[in-house]
Amino acid sequence: MTTEMVPPRFDETFQRQFEQLLIWRRDVRHFRRDPIDQTLIDRLIAMSCLAPSVGNSQPWRFVRVSDPARRAAIRANFMTCNAEALQSYHGEKARLYATLKLAGLDDAPEHLAVFCDNGSETGHGLGSRTMPETKNFSVVAAIYTLWLAARIHGLGVGWVSILDPAQACEALDVPPDWSLVAYLCVGRPVEQSDEPELVRLGWQQREAFEKVLFQR
Amino acid sequence: MTTEMVPPRFDETFQRQFEQLLIWRRDVRHFRRDPIDQTLIDRLIAMSCLAPSVGNSQPWRFVRVSDPARRAAIRANFMTCNAEALQSYHGEKARLYATLKLAGLDDAPEHLAVFCDNGSETGHGLGSRTMPETKNFSVVAAIYTLWLAARIHGLGVGWVSILDPAQACEALDVPPDWSLVAYLCVGRPVEQSDEPELVRLGWQQREAFEKVLFQR
Repeated sequence: MTTEMVPPRFDETFQRQFEQLLIWRRDVRHFRRDPIDQTLIDRLIAMSCLAPSVGNSQPWRFVRVSDPARRAAIRANFMTCNAEALQSYHGEKARLYATLKLAGLDDAPEHLAVFCDNGSETGHGLGSRTMPETKNFSVVAAIYTLWLAARIHGLGVGWVSILDPAQACEALDVPPDWSLVAYLCVGRPVEQSDEPELVRLGWQQREAFEKVLFQR
Repeated sequence: MTTEMVPPRFDETFQRQFEQLLIWRRDVRHFRRDPIDQTLIDRLIAMSCLAPSVGNSQPWRFVRVSDPARRAAIRANFMTCNAEALQSYHGEKARLYATLKLAGLDDAPEHLAVFCDNGSETGHGLGSRTMPETKNFSVVAAIYTLWLAARIHGLGVGWVSILDPAQACEALDVPPDWSLVAYLCVGRPVEQSDEPELVRLGWQQREAFEKVLFQR
């Protein structure tokens, strides 16, 4: 910190707007196809690098996937895993699952595969010795930063996790010590909502606050 | 979404303030001891529940740790793990590691242990079949939401990961299917900075942008 710098004060207006940002952030699966300015994507990724990371290890690696053959491989991966997932549901839940749109892979103009670099020495292992999963957690913080920043700029993000991660790594030809954390679809959303799609469609409602807070 | 609701627009002032929030969020290890209003803690946790979660599974569980014996057990856990970690460094890195203050357990007025409930059926397994770690990732998103919201309200958060997670679960007597994601110290920071302490103290600098973005 240079001595001239004054910490910012976040006033009530900002507090309200930040809460609105959380409320209106969505996992988006319906995208418009118009392309996104590359400088905006770069800016979002640069902001995501301000996320916290264990030992300042900064293990996030973003891969912009634009090659049609690689995109097709990811799509096939998703289709297989989603068909297998459908078989694990029965009755009404199976019927509902089959109607859900769980990925925006066909329409989203930007695809970002996000990895954790487990081979990097950056951070010198500080903080990840007893809980090595904290490196992946750092990548999640970067992804969520990008997600919020995208929403501020009118973009939607959809996190696709219905993938075989090993096959995705192979399709994207990444180094062997990278692990897949998320495959993100990014683009302008078709619609905006303050309610999760899985709530609106009756898959899963929000939990009561009492269920998440405990005392010891 | 009720039909009357209009999606918020996040103007340039908010964009700049949000970036300042990311820049000034810190992993805090030096806390003032004055207590935090319980209603503020509740509000921060309520906001964190707006985080994304796989299949809307909301697997986050927050445990407020105030019992002195339990806090002492966590402190002992940290001391043991930190001493073991020190032994893995040599030379200048060992000397520097020994000088780092890696937890604010003694001074922080609020301790929050955050868990993932792996036994909950909420979300009905959607999206976590091929990547079960996404449940933990959802908890990370909630933690990071709380972290940003805390900073807005003038509070600092320090993530302690130098712990044996199984021993921490035992010390806090949580259900067997909960896994520890983070142990958070929360309180008013002694100082504010726009630079990570690990950068200032010469442990690990920020990476160049070129190292994190790739094309396929």
